[in-house]
Amino acid sequence: MALIVKKFGGSSVANAERVMNVANIIIDDYKKGNDVVVVVSAQGDTTDDLIEKAKEINPEGASKREMDMLLSAGEQISIAILAMAIERLGYPVVSLLGWQAGFETDSNYSLARIKRVNPERLRAELSKKHIVIVAGFQGVNRYDDITTLGRGGSDTSAVAIAATLHADLCQIYTDVDGVYTADPRKVPNAQKMDEITYNEMLELATLGAQVLNNRSVEMAKKYNVELEVLSSLEKKPGTIVKEIVKMEKMLIRGVASDKNVSRISVVGLKDTPGVAFKLFNELAQAKVNVDIILQSVGRDGTKDISFTVSTEQYPLAIAAIEKLEGSLKYQKIVHDEKVAKVSIVGSGMESHPGVAAKMFEALFDAGINIQMISTSEIKISVLIDLADNDHAVTAIHDKFIG
Amino acid sequence: MALIVKKFGGSSVANAERVMNVANIIIDDYKKGNDVVVVVSAQGDTTDDLIEKAKEINPEGASKREMDMLLSAGEQISIAILAMAIERLGYPVVSLLGWQAGFETDSNYSLARIKRVNPERLRAELSKKHIVIVAGFQGVNRYDDITTLGRGGSDTSAVAIAATLHADLCQIYTDVDGVYTADPRKVPNAQKMDEITYNEMLELATLGAQVLNNRSVEMAKKYNVELEVLSSLEKKPGTIVKEIVKMEKMLIRGVASDKNVSRISVVGLKDTPGVAFKLFNELAQAKVNVDIILQSVGRDGTKDISFTVSTEQYPLAIAAIEKLEGSLKYQKIVHDEKVAKVSIVGSGMESHPGVAAKMFEALFDAGINIQMISTSEIKISVLIDLADNDHAVTAIHDKFIG
Repeated sequence: MALIVKKFGGSSVANAERVMNVANIIIDDYKKGNDVVVVVSAQGDTTDDLIEKAKEINPEGASKREMDMLLSAGEQISIAILAMAIERLGYPVVSLLGWQAGFETDSNYSLARIKRVNPERLRAELSKKHIVIVAGFQGVNRYDDITTLGRGGSDTSAVAIAATLHADLCQIYTDVDGVYTADPRKVPNAQKMDEITYNEMLELATLGAQVLNNRSVEMAKKYNVELEVLSSLEKKPGTIVKEIVKMEKMLIRGVASDKNVSRISVVGLKDTPGVAFKLFNELAQAKVNVDIILQSVGRDGTKDISFTVSTEQYPLAIAAIEKLEGSLKYQKIVHDEKVAKVSIVGSGMESHPGVAAKMFEALFDAGINIQMISTSEIKISVLIDLADNDHAVTAIHDKFIG
Repeated sequence: MALIVKKFGGSSVANAERVMNVANIIIDDYKKGNDVVVVVSAQGDTTDDLIEKAKEINPEGASKREMDMLLSAGEQISIAILAMAIERLGYPVVSLLGWQAGFETDSNYSLARIKRVNPERLRAELSKKHIVIVAGFQGVNRYDDITTLGRGGSDTSAVAIAATLHADLCQIYTDVDGVYTADPRKVPNAQKMDEITYNEMLELATLGAQVLNNRSVEMAKKYNVELEVLSSLEKKPGTIVKEIVKMEKMLIRGVASDKNVSRISVVGLKDTPGVAFKLFNELAQAKVNVDIILQSVGRDGTKDISFTVSTEQYPLAIAAIEKLEGSLKYQKIVHDEKVAKVSIVGSGMESHPGVAAKMFEALFDAGINIQMISTSEIKISVLIDLADNDHAVTAIHDKFIG
């Protein structure tokens, strides 16, 4: 007998047929004698429809407090509907809103952080052998006002419950059947992984393999919650995310790509100390997240600094740099949005120096030029032309994974 | 400066244009320096759509607890949307769910009774000069579970807030502009009343003039809350419902009719004591609400008892009487669903003996046969053929009101 937390996204409960399917998955585990807590998102397009409704009333943008009040109704509908489906199949069930399930958050409406989950009600319902259906994505702040955790917040809700109740497993159901070594729609040889570590999953998530919300993986890592990513449509094992004892063997976990990248070069900066500090300090003040950084070797008393930002933050970054025109004295700003970042992720990379060389060889063989390079202990990323993206992912995948 | 509670039904906020209209009505009163609390129902057909959704999942009928969880989402959406409309117009506003506004109820899901309204949060928001938008129809029980008050419950929510906060006025906005002396769609001479007493309003509501929910009028009477029934579409005074100092002059307040009536006659009962007791006790046990009762004078050792019930309760009543066949020994049951109850309502009727005679004269002049008669201090009802209904209402109205 185990305690299992299951999370189902909006597409898994989009219509009556899918809701009944999810109810059956839940009951399968309950019938085996397990305690089951289920976290569910709003059905299908409900959240988008509610956002549309708000825009119709106030196109300038409603307050975040009222937005959270509005959006949290979406999960309220889905928990009641899912509970009704389980009732119909004859099993004991209770649905709980975020505040009823003990989700206490800060007051950062629309992006609230969970402060704690008070487990009292959850424990009481489980001790009555109820299947417990919890509204994901929502909580309540100290003023008794409804908050939401932001997009993807339901994953975080599930992991928070699993951590609080010391669950044996937290299953995240999606429309794919696990985590792959590359995007299976683009790379025919992409393989499903049986296991992956938290850090590897975090790197893959950051790099655009949008299977799991990053916050939820970070929380799972922190509280050592074992995750499983699996399909709600096919009955087969998914990918387990947990702390795996490291082997000496180097494992490339996957190839990911991110097209939501812009490269900015500040050309002709004075080659004196403090220039990089001033530049990146100003960008940090403007809350721009800088990713890969490349500084040219100084020549003729000037140097160039290039870096990448996400495409949304590009205007913010440019505005910040332009503010520095007086103090930094650069010649010009050059930028390029037609770039992509391709990365390989794998534990043990740091002790295998040949990995980077092998990746660069794959790109060279494919005739792809590398613009910038960035490495971490478990990741190597390169910036390339956007047009080369798919070709590069396949070439690297074939070289390492086959 | 006054404290005003305003209640808007679902049709008043059915779309963005109407929501903006309601926001403007609210702001008009707020700008004059008044404290304003607004109770709002779910938008348009939201509640019916949610009920449909539940039926799709569980056609046999979901549990009432989960039904309340589901339906209360409807008001949650409408309070957020209305708050956003007021924000857009630049006024300070906060939306509150039933539990946030302090609505504590019993655990009779789907038909919960308000135990008390804890005024703390409402007072705090008013003291900050916020316009407060409260979700009608919902509350929370002692287990922190969501309850709903049943159809029309939003009127009751509004009156409960007005009573708790000792509001100066509780305005119920509908799609008619007040209470009429008869149904204005049927009686061309029907007149809007400026004022009416609680008791008169109660009689009219019971008799099928569905302007105000009866529970809300009873509560308003108990706590002496002054009500105004008015239109959300036209800007003009409505009908005030309050305790009016009685004048000697007899006032006929209105003519109402109810077609949802069935007449049942139990024919050939033994003319001995206890027969009526046994019959109506059995009906009470079966929770049948009996309205008009007529007992014939005994003849040949037998008598007949006739009574009316609402058409929905007709099968329940027949089943209850059939259970008595052994102990009561009657000859047969006769019933008629093609009947209507037409009533006149007015304070001071008891001291004006000619009223009944005048009503019967009107019916006689119109050639309409009276099947049964029932009177109270402020009401006279007659049972007639359903086919005569409209004709009877007009004839009585013309006789008394003109």
